[in-house]
Amino acid sequence: MKSLGTMLQSGDWKGEKHVPVIHAPEKVKKGEEFEIKTLVGEEIAHPNTLEHHIAWIKVFYHPEGSKFPIEIGNYDFSAHGESEIYTEPYVSFKFKVDKPGTIHTMSYCNIHGLWENSVELVVED
Amino acid sequence: MKSLGTMLQSGDWKGEKHVPVIHAPEKVKKGEEFEIKTLVGEEIAHPNTLEHHIAWIKVFYHPEGSKFPIEIGNYDFSAHGESEIYTEPYVSFKFKVDKPGTIHTMSYCNIHGLWENSVELVVED
Amino acid sequence: MKSLGTMLQSGDWKGEKHVPVIHAPEKVKKGEEFEIKTLVGEEIAHPNTLEHHIAWIKVFYHPEGSKFPIEIGNYDFSAHGESEIYTEPYVSFKFKVDKPGTIHTMSYCNIHGLWENSVELVVED
Amino acid sequence: MKSLGTMLQSGDWKGEKHVPVIHAPEKVKKGEEFEIKTLVGEEIAHPNTLEHHIAWIKVFYHPEGSKFPIEIGNYDFSAHGESEIYTEPYVSFKFKVDKPGTIHTMSYCNIHGLWENSVELVVED
Ligand SMILES: [Fe+3]
Ligand SMILES: [Fe+3]
Ligand SMILES: [Fe+3]
Ligand SMILES: [Fe+3]
Repeated sequence: MKSLGTMLQSGDWKGEKHVPVIHAPEKVKKGEEFEIKTLVGEEIAHPNTLEHHIAWIKVFYHPEGSKFPIEIGNYDFSAHGESEIYTEPYVSFKFKVDKPGTIHTMSYCNIHGLWENSVELVVED
Repeated sequence: MKSLGTMLQSGDWKGEKHVPVIHAPEKVKKGEEFEIKTLVGEEIAHPNTLEHHIAWIKVFYHPEGSKFPIEIGNYDFSAHGESEIYTEPYVSFKFKVDKPGTIHTMSYCNIHGLWENSVELVVED
Repeated sequence: MKSLGTMLQSGDWKGEKHVPVIHAPEKVKKGEEFEIKTLVGEEIAHPNTLEHHIAWIKVFYHPEGSKFPIEIGNYDFSAHGESEIYTEPYVSFKFKVDKPGTIHTMSYCNIHGLWENSVELVVED
Repeated sequence: MKSLGTMLQSGDWKGEKHVPVIHAPEKVKKGEEFEIKTLVGEEIAHPNTLEHHIAWIKVFYHPEGSKFPIEIGNYDFSAHGESEIYTEPYVSFKFKVDKPGTIHTMSYCNIHGLWENSVELVVED
């Protein structure tokens, strides 16, 4: 069976504009909400046209020692020039967790496919 | 025909916890990106459990003089206690416009249905 | 406050191509799954291009005597010519209910805004 | 960097209830729409409760010789017992393509994470 898993591309976001950058706190408090930003194109802007754009970013959290990632949110960027309106491929959101783990982002360009990134999160009592 | 349009509830968000609050700049520059926050439960927190939660907020922009609203984004809040992870019903996002108009938000509680709110946006050259 | 509710357009789908047609059984059995189709453009096809397309259809069920509609599903039609691939604005899905009520669909054209339709569902023991 | 790509689980859907089954025609005509069904739990039903359910299936098409997969659709299954309403993790949809390739599905269980499957599609002139 051919796998999508092998088609999740990544790289250094400073050189590859598709990689979804993650801005997260270094550490957070157990059970207290915190805010995270994720975006595409921080260093090198990605096109934002009807023909070529970032359509969405999904975010997952994978607690250490757990077998499965849990979805935090799904963020669709809908306007790409309709009535001269443009949604930026940027989102900031809040969640809370109990355990340290990994924040994963997956994004989709309608021309260049699926991309991903991740960062570790320290959680204190 | 029965209409969903009549089922979009609203009210004062200080007294009714379901109404999606909108924090937008008073005025923005034409064609320059700006950031907006929308959330449910600013004054009175809404439950966030598997049984009862805010599932999503959609955002539209209706330019003055235009006949139709354009979708800016769709934001799904996915975790409600799985592995002790909770996504807050909050999102901050960026877009740019050319004309003054109205920002509309629509949100959904899995028990209490559809809610909406709107604010006017001034756009300067 | 300006309301989105008043911007949900409707009409006869035989003459207005944007109205989401609903094909549902006349009656279903309580607690037994059944299949429903909803689509845009049955009689008059809607354009399907990057510049102009149907982006999504949402479906809700409003049980008789209940105050709020419950979301059944959200269906995004994602491809509009990328690599010569086109997703049709059509979806068929399954659900089950306990009570008679109303099936509501809401759809979005990226140029012509929000549209809706509804049909009644009879539920037998 | 930890990768989500390695967390897309798969297996034989006859023995593993989470794998999204794909029912597609053996061959289709170039540029003519056709219908595909995908579902979770054909052989062994998956739970459908607020605590444990299939939240969504995404579908991609990867044309032979192309570098990137294109998203066909995103299908959210929203009701898991609210007002005794249950959305089944099943969807049937239509699209058209120009080239042979691979249909990929990715699904998400709110407890058991990400799963995938794929089938090849023959396209005739
Ligand atoms: Fe790109
Ligand atoms: Fe509520
Ligand atoms: Fe249209
Ligand atoms: Fe499961």
